[in-house]
Amino acid sequence: MQTGLLYNAVQTSGHLGWGTVAMSSPCNAACFPRVRRVAIFGGTHGNEMSGITLVNMWMKNGAEVQRNGVLTKPFITNPGAVEKCTRYIDTDLNRAFTPENLSTPSGDGLPYEVQRAKEINQLFGPKGSPDAYDVIFDLHNTTSNMGSTLILESSTDHFNLQMVHYIKKAAAPESCAVLLNEHPQLRYATTRSVSTHPVGLEVGPQPQGVLRSNIFESMRMIVKHALDFIELFNSGVEFPTCTVEAFRVHESVDYPRDTNGNITAMVHPRLQDCDWEPLNPGDPMFQTFDGWSIPYAGDGPVYPAFINEAAYYEKQQAFVATRRETLAAAAIRKASE
Amino acid sequence: MQTGLLYNAVQTSGHLGWGTVAMSSPCNAACFPRVRRVAIFGGTHGNEMSGITLVNMWMKNGAEVQRNGVLTKPFITNPGAVEKCTRYIDTDLNRAFTPENLSTPSGDGLPYEVQRAKEINQLFGPKGSPDAYDVIFDLHNTTSNMGSTLILESSTDHFNLQMVHYIKKAAAPESCAVLLNEHPQLRYATTRSVSTHPVGLEVGPQPQGVLRSNIFESMRMIVKHALDFIELFNSGVEFPTCTVEAFRVHESVDYPRDTNGNITAMVHPRLQDCDWEPLNPGDPMFQTFDGWSIPYAGDGPVYPAFINEAAYYEKQQAFVATRRETLAAAAIRKASE
Repeated sequence: MQTGLLYNAVQTSGHLGWGTVAMSSPCNAACFPRVRRVAIFGGTHGNEMSGITLVNMWMKNGAEVQRNGVLTKPFITNPGAVEKCTRYIDTDLNRAFTPENLSTPSGDGLPYEVQRAKEINQLFGPKGSPDAYDVIFDLHNTTSNMGSTLILESSTDHFNLQMVHYIKKAAAPESCAVLLNEHPQLRYATTRSVSTHPVGLEVGPQPQGVLRSNIFESMRMIVKHALDFIELFNSGVEFPTCTVEAFRVHESVDYPRDTNGNITAMVHPRLQDCDWEPLNPGDPMFQTFDGWSIPYAGDGPVYPAFINEAAYYEKQQAFVATRRETLAAAAIRKASE
Repeated sequence: MQTGLLYNAVQTSGHLGWGTVAMSSPCNAACFPRVRRVAIFGGTHGNEMSGITLVNMWMKNGAEVQRNGVLTKPFITNPGAVEKCTRYIDTDLNRAFTPENLSTPSGDGLPYEVQRAKEINQLFGPKGSPDAYDVIFDLHNTTSNMGSTLILESSTDHFNLQMVHYIKKAAAPESCAVLLNEHPQLRYATTRSVSTHPVGLEVGPQPQGVLRSNIFESMRMIVKHALDFIELFNSGVEFPTCTVEAFRVHESVDYPRDTNGNITAMVHPRLQDCDWEPLNPGDPMFQTFDGWSIPYAGDGPVYPAFINEAAYYEKQQAFVATRRETLAAAAIRKASE
């Protein structure tokens, strides 16, 4: 573990997208303000039990998630859905943080999650403003065999890139994939997007409404590593340039369906549970109820994720095809105060 | 496969509980009427996708489930819940076939599933009457690692005992467990109970709302074997006495909970996914969020099933403890017509 200040000479300033908020005093690394406020969200989907259970636990006793000089706020984002153990009441909260929703006047007629999004934006944002929380971890489960996955929304948020690099190393030999969603159409307005550095954490496989001890412990460990990173960063440690292997969202692939929208084939047994493994043109992708295989017909290998995720049938997605990519993270350190 | 008539000399008549409907002409085996009508139910729980998908498929093209001289009726029992991909709308349909519900007058104020139970009882029953369907297979999925499981409601329905014996042999080397629920408190009023010979088929693990090809094919194969048995029985084949290894429902075990009803421990990783394996006194059963083990404290080994089933959190059940038992099936054959 890095314990002292590290310096390196890579010239990165001036090329650092959003996320570089403060550039103070001569600095060979990208400088970010000290992390003051972190939120840990559970229950954005009310039937994803690991995050709900962890957040409820930390709300009773937060010692495990406290770090020096950081306010850590565990928070249940969709209590109505948690109460009913359902994904959502009226609409998917994790798609609800659009400018339109966040600027619409409050009122009795609003869908439950739109009202809730406005409240969360007030408490932890406003989105895009200097008053927003520094980091939000939003804890999710998937029915897919994805293991632990960190989800990023920007390839140029170097604070987050350094954090996921740190987490991946700390979690080894357990693997922790990084899913990057910058796709112009497939990107969506997440709950965590109200913060400066939004991080999704997706752990599976776990059925909806079930709490599995192995998934619970995996999620807990990733959050621990993330908070450790923040504490190190705040202490003044400089993180040198590095690279991060990521899977970039490329395409959404739906099940074959009939004219009524009913599916006519299943994920092929040779694809089922093979998240993150290469799917090459010609590889079996679906199996019809009559036993016929439907091969993947894309150009070149993709790396499927969210294969046969329960919640995505209604979103017309059998899996998301990703492409592997190496992201470059600039050196970072805390800005002088 | 048995193809001719078999006779044996075991004296069984007079000791054959309910299920022996007709005793005609001298007969060394228990005689049952020819099976005329079979129903295959899917969607009793609207988020258990294998049965829903199979039944929808067979409603479009029933060739696969047709057998000589038998009317086979595939039927979606809870279309409202299927539409919403939820277990139920108002109340659990698979607990709703009580005498009180079935005899209550119809009306607008009834819970959806109570109204539905009354309709199903009219279509496939009336329960306990000679007009009822001969056999109903009710297709379910579980999130538990139970494999294929046949659920019986009586240890003295020799027709069903012979059928599950046949299915187990036909399915080998795939295993197919038999769960027997005759428990005075834990038995419940199932959808299939409107028929003379009710059979539950439970296949897992499969998350709610997900269709997995391996689970789909396992369920399909068990139904095929069951229908083959009925065809053989109708053809006049006599099935000699045999024994059936079964797991008898013994006790329901809840999660540890706090005074608000929230769970305070998870299924222990050494118990998770170990359905049908012996759980001995002192074996770890739950794990608290602090990492403490809670051992099983019963007297003697039990065989857990429905371990960490999603739908049973609300029923205060972490698993059902069963005991192994060898059931004796009388010889059976079709009664003379």
